[in-house]
Amino acid sequence: NPCPKKQVITRDPLPLKLKPIEINLSVIGPYIDYLKEKQGVNNVFVNGTTGESMSLSVEERKLLAEEWCRKAKGKMDQVIVHVGCLSLKDTQELAHHAAQIEADGIAVIAPSFFKPSSADVLRTFLQEVASTAPTLPFYYYHVPSVTGVNELIEGIEKVIPSFRGVKFSGSDLMDLGQCISYIPPHWSVLYGIDEQLLGALVMGVHGAVGSTYNYVGCHVNKLISAFETGDLVQARTIQFKIQELVSFAIKLGFDVGVNKQLMNELSGLDLGPPRLPVMTCPAARALAIKQKYDSIFPE
Amino acid sequence: NPCPKKQVITRDPLPLKLKPIEINLSVIGPYIDYLKEKQGVNNVFVNGTTGESMSLSVEERKLLAEEWCRKAKGKMDQVIVHVGCLSLKDTQELAHHAAQIEADGIAVIAPSFFKPSSADVLRTFLQEVASTAPTLPFYYYHVPSVTGVNELIEGIEKVIPSFRGVKFSGSDLMDLGQCISYIPPHWSVLYGIDEQLLGALVMGVHGAVGSTYNYVGCHVNKLISAFETGDLVQARTIQFKIQELVSFAIKLGFDVGVNKQLMNELSGLDLGPPRLPVMTCPAARALAIKQKYDSIFPE
Amino acid sequence: NPCPKKQVITRDPLPLKLKPIEINLSVIGPYIDYLKEKQGVNNVFVNGTTGESMSLSVEERKLLAEEWCRKAKGKMDQVIVHVGCLSLKDTQELAHHAAQIEADGIAVIAPSFFKPSSADVLRTFLQEVASTAPTLPFYYYHVPSVTGVNELIEGIEKVIPSFRGVKFSGSDLMDLGQCISYIPPHWSVLYGIDEQLLGALVMGVHGAVGSTYNYVGCHVNKLISAFETGDLVQARTIQFKIQELVSFAIKLGFDVGVNKQLMNELSGLDLGPPRLPVMTCPAARALAIKQKYDSIFPE
Amino acid sequence: NPCPKKQVITRDPLPLKLKPIEINLSVIGPYIDYLKEKQGVNNVFVNGTTGESMSLSVEERKLLAEEWCRKAKGKMDQVIVHVGCLSLKDTQELAHHAAQIEADGIAVIAPSFFKPSSADVLRTFLQEVASTAPTLPFYYYHVPSVTGVNELIEGIEKVIPSFRGVKFSGSDLMDLGQCISYIPPHWSVLYGIDEQLLGALVMGVHGAVGSTYNYVGCHVNKLISAFETGDLVQARTIQFKIQELVSFAIKLGFDVGVNKQLMNELSGLDLGPPRLPVMTCPAARALAIKQKYDSIFPE
Repeated sequence: NPCPKKQVITRDPLPLKLKPIEINLSVIGPYIDYLKEKQGVNNVFVNGTTGESMSLSVEERKLLAEEWCRKAKGKMDQVIVHVGCLSLKDTQELAHHAAQIEADGIAVIAPSFFKPSSADVLRTFLQEVASTAPTLPFYYYHVPSVTGVNELIEGIEKVIPSFRGVKFSGSDLMDLGQCISYIPPHWSVLYGIDEQLLGALVMGVHGAVGSTYNYVGCHVNKLISAFETGDLVQARTIQFKIQELVSFAIKLGFDVGVNKQLMNELSGLDLGPPRLPVMTCPAARALAIKQKYDSIFPE
Repeated sequence: NPCPKKQVITRDPLPLKLKPIEINLSVIGPYIDYLKEKQGVNNVFVNGTTGESMSLSVEERKLLAEEWCRKAKGKMDQVIVHVGCLSLKDTQELAHHAAQIEADGIAVIAPSFFKPSSADVLRTFLQEVASTAPTLPFYYYHVPSVTGVNELIEGIEKVIPSFRGVKFSGSDLMDLGQCISYIPPHWSVLYGIDEQLLGALVMGVHGAVGSTYNYVGCHVNKLISAFETGDLVQARTIQFKIQELVSFAIKLGFDVGVNKQLMNELSGLDLGPPRLPVMTCPAARALAIKQKYDSIFPE
Repeated sequence: NPCPKKQVITRDPLPLKLKPIEINLSVIGPYIDYLKEKQGVNNVFVNGTTGESMSLSVEERKLLAEEWCRKAKGKMDQVIVHVGCLSLKDTQELAHHAAQIEADGIAVIAPSFFKPSSADVLRTFLQEVASTAPTLPFYYYHVPSVTGVNELIEGIEKVIPSFRGVKFSGSDLMDLGQCISYIPPHWSVLYGIDEQLLGALVMGVHGAVGSTYNYVGCHVNKLISAFETGDLVQARTIQFKIQELVSFAIKLGFDVGVNKQLMNELSGLDLGPPRLPVMTCPAARALAIKQKYDSIFPE
Repeated sequence: NPCPKKQVITRDPLPLKLKPIEINLSVIGPYIDYLKEKQGVNNVFVNGTTGESMSLSVEERKLLAEEWCRKAKGKMDQVIVHVGCLSLKDTQELAHHAAQIEADGIAVIAPSFFKPSSADVLRTFLQEVASTAPTLPFYYYHVPSVTGVNELIEGIEKVIPSFRGVKFSGSDLMDLGQCISYIPPHWSVLYGIDEQLLGALVMGVHGAVGSTYNYVGCHVNKLISAFETGDLVQARTIQFKIQELVSFAIKLGFDVGVNKQLMNELSGLDLGPPRLPVMTCPAARALAIKQKYDSIFPE
């Protein structure tokens, strides 16, 4: 018998109360004010990596998306809701929901457990999602490990008429450049590697979406302005500062939990702890990174 | 403005009917009979990779688990329900549900989007799951990329009293050997790399869980018997045949969709197509692999 | 006996004539003229990857380095000789030789079979090489897989007084930016990923070393000029063309053998075939890439 | 000017004396006696990874091979000389030399800087080597990263009549099993992953070549005997001990330098330090591993 029945566990079952919802909605309004007033951020990309969407239930994601859309109204230019999940079914449900709550757009990352075996398969998956919210601008959230972005987007407007661009989170600027040179004028390429944004700007990206912009947003706005006016010395100076901060954090251990702690400290708001498997940032690490931040970006 | 608002999509929303459930429960009963009678399989591990659990909604997983438990009663020795998800919350809900439907055990894979940063973090995650089903034997589904199994299981019985073993799906037999030499007698190590099972048997594994056992189960039972009686020539012969089949399939492209097609053809049942992002196996590929199967394992 | 003596081979030894030297020195002079006149290239980096140095004997590398230095005199501004090998001893011998033949500098790649276990170990290795040619400007040839460049170069001038910079062949612009922000004014960072040079220029690199510059050198000179005068539209246009060529070639299969064939065709010189394990570019592939080149860069 | 000429180094060249040969031949004879008498090792594979051949000059490798062949005569059954280098030319020279000094066989690893682009290319490379020593039994040293072994060896006897087997250093037992089921009776498969030898024996390997056999050779001989007589409990016990030692060493840092230090301590001979980029094992680490060895294998 290759799979023997071993000792049975006889302990009585404990009474159990599962809490289906454990998110803190009340902080979203004040956080939007912080982003706008202190960081100069006027567009948000919610339920993405920083928002730990992959650790949330479908119900929790809906509640978060609703609150962001409601509180951002009249304050933010756009709220893009990320709806990607491992399950196509859940993704469709979230996309449809995003349309109902009148989000400004949706974004979808490729499923990462069963990876699409080709660009064609991924395109079909995305099409199935987009068809449930056909009036919402659709963005593909590109992380390079799955498939090449350029194979994917070639002709994608034929199957996804609402396609409007790519959140490009890869360091390979050849892929990026080819993506930019391919797309029509009414699409956007938004860059997602904060520490090399300057290299992406020179290639021609239209915007930036990144987790560190929660607390270096105002500096990045200056970086972009400097770049646009041709002041490369200033643009580099800011980019190198962000690199110094990020590489310092990486050496100590930088993940979504660390990022959340920096968001707490620099916004002055209590956003709550991350959820397992992301761990709360150890206090010593948070302090060291905060001190580094203060030394790089003195007030 | 780094993230400009581009052209708005003005097309009217299409009326949409999302189907929340798209699984075929009626085939489970006959499939259990096939497994038992034709393959000599007496234990099942359900809602795992082959079952595409990661592509299903929580509700779909519950319905499947219930049907398996109900139909296997009196026929199978054990039904182990895999409950791992990216979300701790969903995983807890499924674990609790597995206890309610009286599954024989649960198994949990580590979350793979946010990977646990250490064995300690993963242990805490698993503990949170196990605490919602404390009377069910708990198995860790080990895939090597996340963390070393041996760091994880050291002392795990203190935080998870219901821990009963590991489904070990890695090719590294040093990790496997150390796992086997560590565990107490009432735990099991079940091996998950079908094409090198013989190497795992000689290290001392207690059982085998694998996707190909859906159609080579009867041959693997013979392999195990031959190994146990010391007939290594016979055991090798069968193992080499399975390797020949698997490597042939890999060359053509072998994934869950291909596997499902083989299950369809060899069981004579219609299990339905896979769900995106897994694609239905192309007919030519399915035919070639089926012919290879028939030539390797003639009736 | 775990390692049995099997059947002996009784065939008579064939008479054997090994040719110790199989390189074509006579083409180097004309090739220098081509680079200077047709491509506007005024500095060369020899015995690197494109020169297949790792496939050459120490003696062959010396002969090549001598010929390059001799023929470039009065024509090229600088000849940098790459002297890296797996063996420290061979590397030292080549470094010393480069000093004797009055090369303008040497460059060293990290050994890749036994990878240095830390930046300290690599620094010591490089120091041992540099000490055999202490008057020659020393460049570290950085390929990211081995160790972080920034850990390596911190304080390296104390142990290698002749250190003058880095040939940086990585796509990570954070590493690059930190390298640039660290180095003193009399060092150079030369960028080695041709298809994203523009991103490196905006970060502040001082030059470019790349295999495709053998045939797109003149275009890259225009790219650099456009960048320096702030004409980003023009700079991007050229960069995107190079990306189009490189990605086309990668899809067909792009390696040193393909590159050599393009060098043959575009210089009009016969540089000879590559050496195993690099294969001669198949004729159909060479033709397709050449046609792509002609369509992207019409005369 | 993209590649500017920077500050010239004016320091006077130091007088330099390069020592072309830095190997200790005198210890080889006593080491052969140690291997035979203390470890029960009767066959040696020299100038491989443990011998740091990739860090040696061609001349040094010849001297070592000669000394091993001379001193092993009448004591060892076979001396297999590894002749693989990055350079085909050097590899051919060493293969021809191995024939002249009457080695019992040669082994060749695939070049790892320019990796062969296909099994065909690698086969041609190996053929070029074998043709310079056509009477010597030829072994392919398989490390999985380069190409699949089974594609390589299919039909290889037609182009390399002296082909006699594979040193298989991979953990994938499917590849291994297919290799074993393919080869004719007069070839050997020698296994190179010491910590999972038992899994390879059950697949049918003919022998074992490994760095740890320098000091656990006698235990491995017992493991093999136990396996052959069907005493799996004893075979596992020894295998698990070797795994315990190796995994302990890996946690502290295990490389060729650490291995050499263990060889020094357990043979009682002074084999000399490793060469850069391999570092001498730190004393504390060597002590800890030696103590672990003594606790696992008490005399």
